[in-house]
Amino acid sequence: MAGPETGPEPAAETTGAQVLLRTLVDAGVDVCFANPGTSEMHLVAALDAEPRMRAVLTLFEGVATGAADGYARMADKPAATLLHLGPGLANGTANLHNARRAGTPVVNVVGDHALDHKPLDAPLESDVDALAGTVSARVHRSLSTADLGRDTADAVAAACGPPPAISTLLVPADVAWTSAAGLEPGTLAPPAAPGRGALDADGLESAAKALWSGEPCTLLVGGTGLRERGLVAAHRIAVATGARVLAECFPTRLERGAGVPPISRLAYPGDVARKQLEGTTHLVLAGAASPVTFFGYPGKQGDLVPEGATVHRVTEIGAAGSVALEALADLVAAGVTDVARAGFAPPALPTGPLTVQTAAEVVGALLPEGAIVVDESVTSGASLPQATAGSARHDWLTLTGGAIGFGLPAATGAAVACPDRPVWCLQADGSAMYTISALWTHARENLDVTTVVYDNGAYAILRGELLGVGASLPADSPARSLLDLGSPRLDFVALATGMGVPAVRATTAEELADALRRAAAEPGPHLVAAQVPPLVP
Amino acid sequence: MAGPETGPEPAAETTGAQVLLRTLVDAGVDVCFANPGTSEMHLVAALDAEPRMRAVLTLFEGVATGAADGYARMADKPAATLLHLGPGLANGTANLHNARRAGTPVVNVVGDHALDHKPLDAPLESDVDALAGTVSARVHRSLSTADLGRDTADAVAAACGPPPAISTLLVPADVAWTSAAGLEPGTLAPPAAPGRGALDADGLESAAKALWSGEPCTLLVGGTGLRERGLVAAHRIAVATGARVLAECFPTRLERGAGVPPISRLAYPGDVARKQLEGTTHLVLAGAASPVTFFGYPGKQGDLVPEGATVHRVTEIGAAGSVALEALADLVAAGVTDVARAGFAPPALPTGPLTVQTAAEVVGALLPEGAIVVDESVTSGASLPQATAGSARHDWLTLTGGAIGFGLPAATGAAVACPDRPVWCLQADGSAMYTISALWTHARENLDVTTVVYDNGAYAILRGELLGVGASLPADSPARSLLDLGSPRLDFVALATGMGVPAVRATTAEELADALRRAAAEPGPHLVAAQVPPLVP
Repeated sequence: MAGPETGPEPAAETTGAQVLLRTLVDAGVDVCFANPGTSEMHLVAALDAEPRMRAVLTLFEGVATGAADGYARMADKPAATLLHLGPGLANGTANLHNARRAGTPVVNVVGDHALDHKPLDAPLESDVDALAGTVSARVHRSLSTADLGRDTADAVAAACGPPPAISTLLVPADVAWTSAAGLEPGTLAPPAAPGRGALDADGLESAAKALWSGEPCTLLVGGTGLRERGLVAAHRIAVATGARVLAECFPTRLERGAGVPPISRLAYPGDVARKQLEGTTHLVLAGAASPVTFFGYPGKQGDLVPEGATVHRVTEIGAAGSVALEALADLVAAGVTDVARAGFAPPALPTGPLTVQTAAEVVGALLPEGAIVVDESVTSGASLPQATAGSARHDWLTLTGGAIGFGLPAATGAAVACPDRPVWCLQADGSAMYTISALWTHARENLDVTTVVYDNGAYAILRGELLGVGASLPADSPARSLLDLGSPRLDFVALATGMGVPAVRATTAEELADALRRAAAEPGPHLVAAQVPPLVP
Repeated sequence: MAGPETGPEPAAETTGAQVLLRTLVDAGVDVCFANPGTSEMHLVAALDAEPRMRAVLTLFEGVATGAADGYARMADKPAATLLHLGPGLANGTANLHNARRAGTPVVNVVGDHALDHKPLDAPLESDVDALAGTVSARVHRSLSTADLGRDTADAVAAACGPPPAISTLLVPADVAWTSAAGLEPGTLAPPAAPGRGALDADGLESAAKALWSGEPCTLLVGGTGLRERGLVAAHRIAVATGARVLAECFPTRLERGAGVPPISRLAYPGDVARKQLEGTTHLVLAGAASPVTFFGYPGKQGDLVPEGATVHRVTEIGAAGSVALEALADLVAAGVTDVARAGFAPPALPTGPLTVQTAAEVVGALLPEGAIVVDESVTSGASLPQATAGSARHDWLTLTGGAIGFGLPAATGAAVACPDRPVWCLQADGSAMYTISALWTHARENLDVTTVVYDNGAYAILRGELLGVGASLPADSPARSLLDLGSPRLDFVALATGMGVPAVRATTAEELADALRRAAAEPGPHLVAAQVPPLVP
């Protein structure tokens, strides 16, 4: 790779790339999480002509896609990603998987070889269409500069939905670099509001009948049903009918804390979840998928619907949960207007050694008003839901698809979406390493992200899962070393400072509290390496 | 995620997982680069019963797959990877793309949901088959424990070839955990030796005629043709017929240095490559693909075959290049037995500020006998081929597929394959960040890998590519900041030490030489952050 290809004089006229960017911004997509390569250079160059687009550089595509997920969960509209051919999209696929499970809108702009270069099977050529299809509701390749405005608008429309989804636009390099003189940007038809059309009328009617029946009913809430509006409606239904209310296990975005109606989440361990649903004869799904265990285990049922229970679905999974719940509440709880809300009752600040419990209490005590919590704490987060239930009002974003490496990138996107709100990223150590370079973007963009890495030196979740699948190993087993991160111990303070994020270590509750207070007092990103013993020894 | 699923007592009898591992090892696949999750826990547990299998833990799947690529390039046999469902495979796909382009054998073992859990569409479910198909020559899902031995043997056979390829075995969790009492491991039919059968007889005959014709011929060599045997044969042909000899631009493994017949590589910039091939009327491809530019550029031909030239292909791309060259040499150069070899003539150690040139001279001067060089130096490596041509004998592995993030993982695998040979990983800074956690595996396994990070604070290659596609930007352009890594500057010394790899910074040639000498004198991994000005300012 000896120096640059010498090329023609830079084009001064409008390019397809500029039309693409203008179309995106006109359609409201004005943030782009980018990790570009050669085939995207005209899209990069076009940024100068479109200052309304904020381009956020990431050092790895999984950071770009996870950021787009976190952004859209908070902004309620898609960001774009800018990715380099098949391998770039592949690197972003795991976090797109999480976004797909979250029902998040994302517009992937994936550069591809120029149209006449593609058949040459150059080294970076791969089946990008098949790859994109594994995570995208829609994949489209733009074949001419004249179509690029329309194609871009259509890609945004597909992302916005309803239902919101991942939309991938493949852009051959020449389609981007060709002159677009005289071409207009594409325009977006205003999206259909996620109104009654998204609801399942039959499902609503059968759910209403079930709720009136007097038989034990559980309302399983997901998607936008976990915003305040949906939670109020769910609790109105509960007050009127005696139904139990539960949130899905891994919410896309759960509004909670002081002032919001509280809701428990379906538990991750199947045995606990089965107990939560025991006795239910009608399960009403409002924006949630029918509950199943995360994995199959020997001799255990994966389906969590209690035997003999009837399932009623009032809307698409993930979509319009709050609208569906309000429709259902209007049917069965018209007379109920007020519901109980969580009070402001944070835990007292603990003292002494840092544990999963004391770390959670520190977080619960200090969580600031309006915080956005990105939760990839895995086993170390076991005590968090309870410890933060009475904290100041906040949003809680979780790992919807189980593809680890979500936390640091999603925190990036949430902070870009909500620059006036503090983002707390509660991050397990093993998972952090998949997308650790997100810290550099935190620093580069000076984002108000405070990361707590739960540094327990282990894939502790897998120690538990090993038991769950009946494959326990003695402590000195060589195989068991594959679940350890302690040799060598990762130094997250060094990793963070190496990427420009100020960082400290905390081994006591007092040190964690001090670090979090300092982070809140200073602008920009911070990291605390919270050394906790693993939950599963 | 509140604590483990409680499960049944651990099974003491033989499991499918044990049969799988035993089959792999019996077939010669005795290294596994692993990043497992719940669905692979029985495969992890089975390691204790199969101590012949070396399991190497990685913190990210792209490290596992890149390591498998580097391993196979040096061991000439596949390693296994152990990956977690679709998202795990997705994270490993970019480096599998490089392995596919390298013609490297890899056996991917991808855990999947238990058969009865799969239809439940649990959060981690995705179209893993489609994903695997984008990089694999063969994808097979094992559907019963009774078949697992045979399925595993078949997966290894498909990887071994000929031609060597990526073979993906999807293993449902229950197929791995079910008792395999009384079942035998699968056995591998001895692979067909890559003999004359892999050759193209018509191509050999037409190539021989062309070489005899007296018209200008160029022999473009790739695959195993770039090992010593192939190079000797290529040079015999050149001596006998006057043909020119060139290596493909990005070799899988090039043997070179003192004692090996030297060969120039086709250049990366199309303009230079076109000059190299100018005047050729017959292009003989021996293990190389027909040459094309890496990307398409406005107004330039992507196809590098000179107009009017005839192409002769003597073997499959990547396969049996050395065998083909020997067959061709036997046809046209039977009387030539000896060829010129490179002498031992390393450059003098330079002094003064570190530049792309002086850094290359330091590497060339100190490269130890038998070194394995993993080259992802991108622009900062411009002077390396010349500066190392007279170094002690070594192997040179390059980025075959253009999916960056290859260097640190491939160095991992090369070091595991050849524990008695020093591995030098020459690594660009931007590319390093895609798979930086490989450093932790270097430390954990105490691998003899010396990494030189060319720390130029930029995606310098893209600055060049920007010119190449005619999209130059002024120095103060906001868009241009998307090609900069300087704000904040990455501190690779902190990153390396944070993962347990001793590291120093070098700003002069003397400091780089000192650091490399120290690294050679101490066991285990080292990193030098070599601060060089970017080649493309």
